[in-house]
Amino acid sequence: MNKNSSNIMALAPNTSNKRETVCIFGTGDFGRALGHKMIQCGYSVVYGSRSTQISNLIPKDAEVLGHAEAAQKAAIIIIAIQRQHYNFLTPLAETLHGKVLVDISNNLKLNQYPESNAEYLAQLLPGSKVVKAFNTVSAWALQSGTLDASRQVFVCGDDVEAKQMVMDIVRALSLTPLDKGSLSAAQEIENYPLQLFPMWNFPIILSLALTIFFFLYCLALDVIYPYIYENSNLSFFIAITIPNRVCPVMALILLALVYLPGIFAAIIQLYRGTKYSRFPNWLDKWMLCRKQLGLVALAFASLHAVFTLVTPLRAFVSWRTSNRIISQALNNETEPLDNTNAWLSDSYLALGVLGYFLFVLLGITSLPSVSNSVNWREFRFVQSKLGYLALVLCTAHTMVYGGTWFLNPAAYKWYLPDIYMLSLVVPCAILVVKFVLILPCVDKPLTRIRQGWERNPKNSE
Amino acid sequence: MNKNSSNIMALAPNTSNKRETVCIFGTGDFGRALGHKMIQCGYSVVYGSRSTQISNLIPKDAEVLGHAEAAQKAAIIIIAIQRQHYNFLTPLAETLHGKVLVDISNNLKLNQYPESNAEYLAQLLPGSKVVKAFNTVSAWALQSGTLDASRQVFVCGDDVEAKQMVMDIVRALSLTPLDKGSLSAAQEIENYPLQLFPMWNFPIILSLALTIFFFLYCLALDVIYPYIYENSNLSFFIAITIPNRVCPVMALILLALVYLPGIFAAIIQLYRGTKYSRFPNWLDKWMLCRKQLGLVALAFASLHAVFTLVTPLRAFVSWRTSNRIISQALNNETEPLDNTNAWLSDSYLALGVLGYFLFVLLGITSLPSVSNSVNWREFRFVQSKLGYLALVLCTAHTMVYGGTWFLNPAAYKWYLPDIYMLSLVVPCAILVVKFVLILPCVDKPLTRIRQGWERNPKNSE
Amino acid sequence: MNKNSSNIMALAPNTSNKRETVCIFGTGDFGRALGHKMIQCGYSVVYGSRSTQISNLIPKDAEVLGHAEAAQKAAIIIIAIQRQHYNFLTPLAETLHGKVLVDISNNLKLNQYPESNAEYLAQLLPGSKVVKAFNTVSAWALQSGTLDASRQVFVCGDDVEAKQMVMDIVRALSLTPLDKGSLSAAQEIENYPLQLFPMWNFPIILSLALTIFFFLYCLALDVIYPYIYENSNLSFFIAITIPNRVCPVMALILLALVYLPGIFAAIIQLYRGTKYSRFPNWLDKWMLCRKQLGLVALAFASLHAVFTLVTPLRAFVSWRTSNRIISQALNNETEPLDNTNAWLSDSYLALGVLGYFLFVLLGITSLPSVSNSVNWREFRFVQSKLGYLALVLCTAHTMVYGGTWFLNPAAYKWYLPDIYMLSLVVPCAILVVKFVLILPCVDKPLTRIRQGWERNPKNSE
Repeated sequence: MNKNSSNIMALAPNTSNKRETVCIFGTGDFGRALGHKMIQCGYSVVYGSRSTQISNLIPKDAEVLGHAEAAQKAAIIIIAIQRQHYNFLTPLAETLHGKVLVDISNNLKLNQYPESNAEYLAQLLPGSKVVKAFNTVSAWALQSGTLDASRQVFVCGDDVEAKQMVMDIVRALSLTPLDKGSLSAAQEIENYPLQLFPMWNFPIILSLALTIFFFLYCLALDVIYPYIYENSNLSFFIAITIPNRVCPVMALILLALVYLPGIFAAIIQLYRGTKYSRFPNWLDKWMLCRKQLGLVALAFASLHAVFTLVTPLRAFVSWRTSNRIISQALNNETEPLDNTNAWLSDSYLALGVLGYFLFVLLGITSLPSVSNSVNWREFRFVQSKLGYLALVLCTAHTMVYGGTWFLNPAAYKWYLPDIYMLSLVVPCAILVVKFVLILPCVDKPLTRIRQGWERNPKNSE
Repeated sequence: MNKNSSNIMALAPNTSNKRETVCIFGTGDFGRALGHKMIQCGYSVVYGSRSTQISNLIPKDAEVLGHAEAAQKAAIIIIAIQRQHYNFLTPLAETLHGKVLVDISNNLKLNQYPESNAEYLAQLLPGSKVVKAFNTVSAWALQSGTLDASRQVFVCGDDVEAKQMVMDIVRALSLTPLDKGSLSAAQEIENYPLQLFPMWNFPIILSLALTIFFFLYCLALDVIYPYIYENSNLSFFIAITIPNRVCPVMALILLALVYLPGIFAAIIQLYRGTKYSRFPNWLDKWMLCRKQLGLVALAFASLHAVFTLVTPLRAFVSWRTSNRIISQALNNETEPLDNTNAWLSDSYLALGVLGYFLFVLLGITSLPSVSNSVNWREFRFVQSKLGYLALVLCTAHTMVYGGTWFLNPAAYKWYLPDIYMLSLVVPCAILVVKFVLILPCVDKPLTRIRQGWERNPKNSE
Repeated sequence: MNKNSSNIMALAPNTSNKRETVCIFGTGDFGRALGHKMIQCGYSVVYGSRSTQISNLIPKDAEVLGHAEAAQKAAIIIIAIQRQHYNFLTPLAETLHGKVLVDISNNLKLNQYPESNAEYLAQLLPGSKVVKAFNTVSAWALQSGTLDASRQVFVCGDDVEAKQMVMDIVRALSLTPLDKGSLSAAQEIENYPLQLFPMWNFPIILSLALTIFFFLYCLALDVIYPYIYENSNLSFFIAITIPNRVCPVMALILLALVYLPGIFAAIIQLYRGTKYSRFPNWLDKWMLCRKQLGLVALAFASLHAVFTLVTPLRAFVSWRTSNRIISQALNNETEPLDNTNAWLSDSYLALGVLGYFLFVLLGITSLPSVSNSVNWREFRFVQSKLGYLALVLCTAHTMVYGGTWFLNPAAYKWYLPDIYMLSLVVPCAILVVKFVLILPCVDKPLTRIRQGWERNPKNSE
């Protein structure tokens, strides 16, 4: 009996060793790359093509047939042709009936057509089960095997079984399927590979605008003002001095903007007495890009840190130091240590170092792999508690930097305040309101609201 | 024939397009969020509730029925109610018999009850198959779709099939199930979301205690001593000078403590002549928190680096420099370059820079995503070989910093040594013992023991 | 009826609560650890061993039988014995016929045997279905449960069903299976755990060689030359000055080498008029290690940054500053601010800071978890656009550093150029060629070629 089964094994290696057959329409780059990878992973691949002449670019173990014959051989057909040629599939409707069609197409522009390619395909062939998949993977990545960019394959479709079949293929290719729901998600999936950091748009545009404003503001006060009134050319301030004034201001304001929507949300919830009514749209959007705002703030803080550390290396600074020392030496004077000054200078630096340290910690916990390995409570502890501590330290750092300078009329060139004073407005306001919000008499009702209590329960019916 | 099947498709879209029906008991926040997500992913959801009146907060496509009717519609029932109300499920025991009950509850405190909620539920309804799952996911994360905090869902249960069914749902929701074994793991899973960095407790408490001790030690020697004996007020040392003495000491000691348990383990294995007897409990625990100890050490080293780089910006330092230069200028003297001094200063800095560089490299390879992409040999190479090199460099850095100062009686205020000398004790001891351990005559038997050889093999019977 | 089913449940807990039975041949470290983990995850484990005497190291719930009896109990047999003892399995061929054999063995050296262990096993037992798996996981990691090193389990085998069964076990143990194709991949999988950063070999050897060359070059010009001709002992330059000359040169050259293969590829594609012919082998290899080259460049740039920031703390620098100031003071002179000098110094620093900032950004997006969360277009934007910007900034930084020094005959000691001039050759060449490549008249055909157009389409037939 053993010998028998051995013979059966030897006779039919293909049946037990192969996965099912998959058909690919189109022999373009991506069709070939996908077929190659599938053959590697044990699938039988048959190409449907206009010319059945075998090109040497097509994987060796694949068959090439006409569209209709190829489609009959498989339950799953991957449509690796461009949307413009979809209508040539209409005559094949009978053959494709009940089959799973995998739309892998991409567009050249966001929202290029009114409906997604996959939905268009489903309209053309209403008897087939259309599944959107694989469009986020590049041919080069499939071929070379180094899928650095992304292993995730978004899948959507109206037929759960068809979707499951496609997701099994995705897994077999060592990729990670991500179910995005029904075919109406196809538009979003088709837009995905065309996006360029959509979550970063608002934070980056906002910070660019603010940076330009503050840069020009500083340019006026620090370069143009002395040029006009003191006739001194300090144009080289553009390289380091002014950036090192703008960066900390931007970092502090953006960090404050990370915590501002939370304050707004708390006030709205307190005012409405329920957590079940939606926030205004702008607040929702703002809350979703807090992480990006925080990371841009961290970038500015890092630039500020390096620009500051670089100070002693500047020719201007060493010239200024020499001149100060020489004039003291020529006057035969050695001044005693000013203890207040030493305290201010050291606490200014220490507050900055500690604030930046916490800031970097927040940045590290924003890394996907780190934030995935902490639980919800830990994530909130770091992002909320440590975040507020960082905000307090950075605000104090800025205040100590200013010292009593804001009392000096010389600080107001052209009656305008120094930018460090402008940067303090938002964080100070946030810290004051937050302080009110954590007072027990305010915190208690807020906590109850957040646990589901409603002041006016008819809202929920 | 084709037309026929087309008609069947058109008539029964729900049967082929829908996954199975899932029942959810309880219409609270999490029950609603979970139902919403499940409907999105193709499940039919039916709520079991006391009042079948439909609230506008419940997902539109869900049905709301009484508990018993709802339970009859599904094989899986998600228990989204609080433990206090579990006993009201007892009358439903008949209906719930043989069903899969998913306990998703959380407690407010660690180990709040003697047995876990899931085990309690299993005791109440012995005929049902209880599976613990979903308690680590937050309602907000499910709803908003940005699952930054964690995609992992811990699952446990005594019935393998029931567990499999729940894990399939978890996967369908694009989350990652993690099988934690039988239902006795439920206690651990319920404690998980309440934990606040449990692995970090010991390293942080230890380093806080040591930091306070060293801070007070330095305060006494660097601020109080000069105030008493030299009547000079150096209180501003508290801001930077003393932290910058404590941080490197802490970094070196904690780095040494990362490698100390490995030394102990080697000695114990050599002494016992086998690797098959368990280490003492404290050593096991210590070995498991080495990564955290190392990262805290890295934090201290980073603070030390920044505090040091900030030095030239301090008012005190620029005052001291000016005074030194002015007094030299007034005495008309220019001293020649002290070559030994230049060597000491430069090698001190270079050793520190290289040690810190390796330290940061170790930190980067500790990031989950990096350590997941290296093999075991590479991980050990980095953490062990490069780690020891970092320890050697940092110890040498500290020794060169001290130079011959330890020979000077002035170094011992109140007969106490400087803290940098204290910090050298543990690392030097480790390096000496490690040097002995890598001598061939010791290394050979140790390697054999680690490959499974036993000096006294009866141990293993 | 309900009562009945309840009884059945109570009578047969093992059938419904247990997964299938797995047999493990061999009771060594790894066999025991794997069995232990499998029992935890619900499998029944039976050991096949020469002596059926039960050691106390074997998991309690496991059975220990002779090899033949054990094998009969399970469809999957894990071969946890060393390759040298494989031939003793030959007599069991009848029993093992049709069974799934999981080869988990590792070798001590890369390519130790002509064929992989798994293929050898398949030759010995042609009637069994051999699957390679688990060899990348360590016993310690399985036991302690902290799988920091890697959760990935590479699986390969000729029989798809057998592979699927093994991959299901891998998933059940909360590990991630990665299908590597047919059994011919076993060699690669067996070599994997023996590898020590194979992708890093070339970048590290290259940079080591270049570092030594540039170090000796600088040593000759900066230490030996002044010693011979000026009789001044500057040996302490070895610690910081020379490293801080070599590091930036290395960083710039390696960064340029990251972008050089892309330039070559574009030229080759333009010349051949097609993208479908393979690149020469050396170019393929070079392109695959660009990420590693870039990270090594980042390491050198970081060292350069820290060495530069540390400058004001050096005894040599403070001695030089004092002397300069004192001699000025003694001459009663205060020089005015040299505006050109201030501009050069500040823009040199600003360019360096910005270049390094972009460099770090590139490094962060190379982290696996970050690069996995961006789409292909975003990844290319960062790595290509921002990368070139970083290269431009760093090249400009180096040029401004040199200033007009290259016109000065004193810059050419022993008629040799300073190393910063050497470092500019490759980046400048790349930037010039890249500038030509983005001219519309060159860019347009290149883009068409990359979209699949061929100048000479017969190539593809």
